[in-house]
Amino acid sequence: MLALLDQTKLPAREDELVCADAEDLVAAIRALSVRGAPLLGVAGGYGVALAAARGHDVAAAADRLASARPTAVNLAAGVRRVEQAYRTAIDGGADASGAAAVSLAEARKLHEEDAEASARMAQLGHGLLGDLVPRAPMRLLTHCNTGMLVSGGKGTAFGVVTEVHAAGELGRLWVDETRPLLQGARLTAYEATREGMPFSVLADGAAGSLFAAGEVDAVLIGADRIAADGSVANKVGSYPLAVLARHHGVPFVVVAPVTTVDLATAHGADIVVEQRPAEEVTHISSPYAPYHPDSQGERDGGIPMAPVGADAYNPAFDVTPPELVTAIVTERGVISPVTSETVAGLCSPSRTRTSRWGNGMMNA
Amino acid sequence: MLALLDQTKLPAREDELVCADAEDLVAAIRALSVRGAPLLGVAGGYGVALAAARGHDVAAAADRLASARPTAVNLAAGVRRVEQAYRTAIDGGADASGAAAVSLAEARKLHEEDAEASARMAQLGHGLLGDLVPRAPMRLLTHCNTGMLVSGGKGTAFGVVTEVHAAGELGRLWVDETRPLLQGARLTAYEATREGMPFSVLADGAAGSLFAAGEVDAVLIGADRIAADGSVANKVGSYPLAVLARHHGVPFVVVAPVTTVDLATAHGADIVVEQRPAEEVTHISSPYAPYHPDSQGERDGGIPMAPVGADAYNPAFDVTPPELVTAIVTERGVISPVTSETVAGLCSPSRTRTSRWGNGMMNA
Repeated sequence: MLALLDQTKLPAREDELVCADAEDLVAAIRALSVRGAPLLGVAGGYGVALAAARGHDVAAAADRLASARPTAVNLAAGVRRVEQAYRTAIDGGADASGAAAVSLAEARKLHEEDAEASARMAQLGHGLLGDLVPRAPMRLLTHCNTGMLVSGGKGTAFGVVTEVHAAGELGRLWVDETRPLLQGARLTAYEATREGMPFSVLADGAAGSLFAAGEVDAVLIGADRIAADGSVANKVGSYPLAVLARHHGVPFVVVAPVTTVDLATAHGADIVVEQRPAEEVTHISSPYAPYHPDSQGERDGGIPMAPVGADAYNPAFDVTPPELVTAIVTERGVISPVTSETVAGLCSPSRTRTSRWGNGMMNA
Repeated sequence: MLALLDQTKLPAREDELVCADAEDLVAAIRALSVRGAPLLGVAGGYGVALAAARGHDVAAAADRLASARPTAVNLAAGVRRVEQAYRTAIDGGADASGAAAVSLAEARKLHEEDAEASARMAQLGHGLLGDLVPRAPMRLLTHCNTGMLVSGGKGTAFGVVTEVHAAGELGRLWVDETRPLLQGARLTAYEATREGMPFSVLADGAAGSLFAAGEVDAVLIGADRIAADGSVANKVGSYPLAVLARHHGVPFVVVAPVTTVDLATAHGADIVVEQRPAEEVTHISSPYAPYHPDSQGERDGGIPMAPVGADAYNPAFDVTPPELVTAIVTERGVISPVTSETVAGLCSPSRTRTSRWGNGMMNA
């Protein structure tokens, strides 16, 4: 059994969602009950361990899990890593029970490493902001949700904000509500409240007013996939922030573990962007608003906003080209500028964990 | 009595809202039951006529109406025009009943002129797009709601879209949902459905993906106030579209009647931007979703999305500087480039109604 916090119910309720097998987990991932690139990797790893423990077909479960969502590369990476541990154990003569134990140990190791990576990214990101932002306290803008809920640790971009806040340097966190699914208003605001941060939620379109008023010192976001050329796929609405940040000379910083980099994807244009149902835009779901009898909607929790039958364009992610990204913060160091070369260097096995790539180019 | 279509109930219901006196209309304007810059001018004019007909204090009613919302200059312009007609009648020896009749006639004249202005803007805007957009059918992106609902006629930006559609040249209308109050998803989608246009609603943050994919040929928006320097105040989320349009070399066109120009406001920075309640962002209102017992919200129809007590930044408008505006289409002609000089020329009494200012600079 795998117990997860059901993120679709936040901030109304802290419900536990129990997955009895890998198929339950596939459904939970598709429904976004569990979401966020690093956490998807960890959850996927546990899902393979669960399939092994239940004596199910591990290869089939791994395939189903790895493809539950197309854009987040961490999901497939976590799944394949635990599947590999399972196979190695079987090939080494382990019985099903022994291989299941090895799988669970590997999933737990992945989980711990993710927590360590979060802590390291938080430190490195905090140091980078000290270089990039001349003023304190600083006003940081973020999009979507990238905190404890998406990670085995403190998170990615939000982990950096937590570190800035702990150092007494956070003036305000601007939280994009992040339509259509409102991960910012629901989840990041929930985490910011728990951390006692000064924060304000805003409609995604209001970010422009903040930039124009000089109220944003840096943008911090996570990533779902980073191509070999440094293009960053992240929650839809990230790219407009990158364009605004460039227009206003504000640093745009991506925080993501190295597993987010997919060297097999050469360019941003090669990233497969998940298209999600129109109802996510034409209807609004809320844990406070169950299915409404007048709604004529088919999805639970869907309250219609647009006229019945209206078409919607609903890409889950967008792609920001590397030239608009000031820096990428990973647990192995910071790269800036973001180029094919610096991305390749980050992924090189010979790279030491503590170096900071391109440190001399930091004060951009 | 003044009967209005209650826009807060659309697209769920077509409810009539009856205003017995000017104070009812002030409340309806504040609640956004009646909204949209040109229509506010017409409604404000009728409100003064209503005060005159009821024998109320016309000057006091005009003051209350003119300041019901701070940003839309058309509101005050319509109110003051009818108030002036009333005063002139009284000064000329008319009794209360005669002055009320004069006021109503002036409000009706304002209404008719607004409808004529819409038709003229639609023609001029259509012609401009023919110059600016080399392909047909064209893909147009709009924000907020600027159609029949905001005007005595076909509207401003949406009126132009209607003209393009009537000519068989509309490939697709991209409708920004326009958070926080979803005027795009609720109202523009409602009007587009009635007109039989091909359209898709999108989360405001997804517009960036459309620009990046080359799917936007031009942006068309309305305006709530245009300063003497050509800065355009419009629904929050317009400025990010202007920055994206510039980044991608896409024309950004503003459609508004000349009454939207406020020569008394010198610069964009002088425009007073209305800050609206946090609950519009932290809660979601829908005509399909009345007050929910779990919501703990105070506003009717408010379903909470963010944690209880979360702060929000909620400016109603943003300001786009003139250098990001390709052209302004008015009933008196098109100006491009947008500068203090071309704006002043537009407002000059000597200007003929049919000329097109700066026509030679059109193919930018």
